[in-house]
Amino acid sequence: MSSAQQVRRGRFITLEGIDGAGKSTHLSFIRDWLARHDVDAVFTREPGGTPLGEKIRELLLAPDTRVSLDAEALLAFAGRQQHIAEVIAPALDAGRWLVSDRFTDSTYAFQGGGRGVPFERIRALEEWVQRGLQPDLTLLFDLPLDVAAQRMSGTRVLDRFEQEAADFHQRVRDAYLRRAAAEPGRFAVLDSSRSIETIQADIANHLQTLWERG
Amino acid sequence: MSSAQQVRRGRFITLEGIDGAGKSTHLSFIRDWLARHDVDAVFTREPGGTPLGEKIRELLLAPDTRVSLDAEALLAFAGRQQHIAEVIAPALDAGRWLVSDRFTDSTYAFQGGGRGVPFERIRALEEWVQRGLQPDLTLLFDLPLDVAAQRMSGTRVLDRFEQEAADFHQRVRDAYLRRAAAEPGRFAVLDSSRSIETIQADIANHLQTLWERG
Repeated sequence: MSSAQQVRRGRFITLEGIDGAGKSTHLSFIRDWLARHDVDAVFTREPGGTPLGEKIRELLLAPDTRVSLDAEALLAFAGRQQHIAEVIAPALDAGRWLVSDRFTDSTYAFQGGGRGVPFERIRALEEWVQRGLQPDLTLLFDLPLDVAAQRMSGTRVLDRFEQEAADFHQRVRDAYLRRAAAEPGRFAVLDSSRSIETIQADIANHLQTLWERG
Repeated sequence: MSSAQQVRRGRFITLEGIDGAGKSTHLSFIRDWLARHDVDAVFTREPGGTPLGEKIRELLLAPDTRVSLDAEALLAFAGRQQHIAEVIAPALDAGRWLVSDRFTDSTYAFQGGGRGVPFERIRALEEWVQRGLQPDLTLLFDLPLDVAAQRMSGTRVLDRFEQEAADFHQRVRDAYLRRAAAEPGRFAVLDSSRSIETIQADIANHLQTLWERG
């Protein structure tokens, strides 16, 4: 994953958060910011990112195929392994920046926090696959659950299905925030209930810091 | 994987060996032997064994999809995890016998010995997935490579492709034999260059021992 000729490794940025927290909106802002600064950047996503990853994604969506929680975690990391080998490591080794819409923190949040796979079991696979590779910056788009619930249901009382969904998202959010608290140097937690302009000023600051770092 | 009602766990038998060592022939002998002894047995195989496993198998055979060695190992264990959850553990917990044509030793032999994934990395995934589950008996059908080479090429000198294939099979065979030497209580190594009758007398002895074990 490195060569003697290489001057320096590129930057690795990941975007995380529950759905509806505005990742897509801010992704295009990041794209524009990097273009304005003449940064050679690759944009990718998980799950997916490679032909194998797309096939694993399809496989997980097939309605007739039973997939245990543990098998799902292994499949997520199989896709991630290929994503690193085929896309992420080559870009970083070439000195390019790489922006991924979701990465390993999503596995901790959704499979771990949301569905109960123990964090230490996810960590074992993370170490097996990433061998120390970590994003330089993770932008966590965070939305208070009362805002999310309000957006979801208006002022109605939640029905059982919606309540389960709200509980699930609460656990996902909590897992994300625990990850962020444990690694404050990597994570930037962005309160997504603020105005888009305020959030983007924050993002620009984080990108600027990363850009200036030698 | 266990319940209070359960009297005792079934038996878990795996068949291993390089292709052409006679696994299929002896599988039907095992099936007949178990039927004659009124043993309630399930027959399965890897890769495959579940709908998810079959889809993973197809995915690995797709010619346009790049799959790194590490991703392949993760996919193998994702299929195995599902195989255990859906087929193997329920059968054993119900007191049935389960015979699998290939299991984890194949990963050590082919991905490990044959293609160079370090044994300790395979072991990490094995522990993650199996949590201590191991076959009670592994029948390793072993064929000296000179016999295999002779069967493959007659008396011709091997061409480069055949030589590479022979080297690969040598490494696979060596890995199997190292596994067997490390776990003599689980493995029965069966010299497949002998007559079918002699081999089957051996198999019958091993099954009888397992059957009599309380």
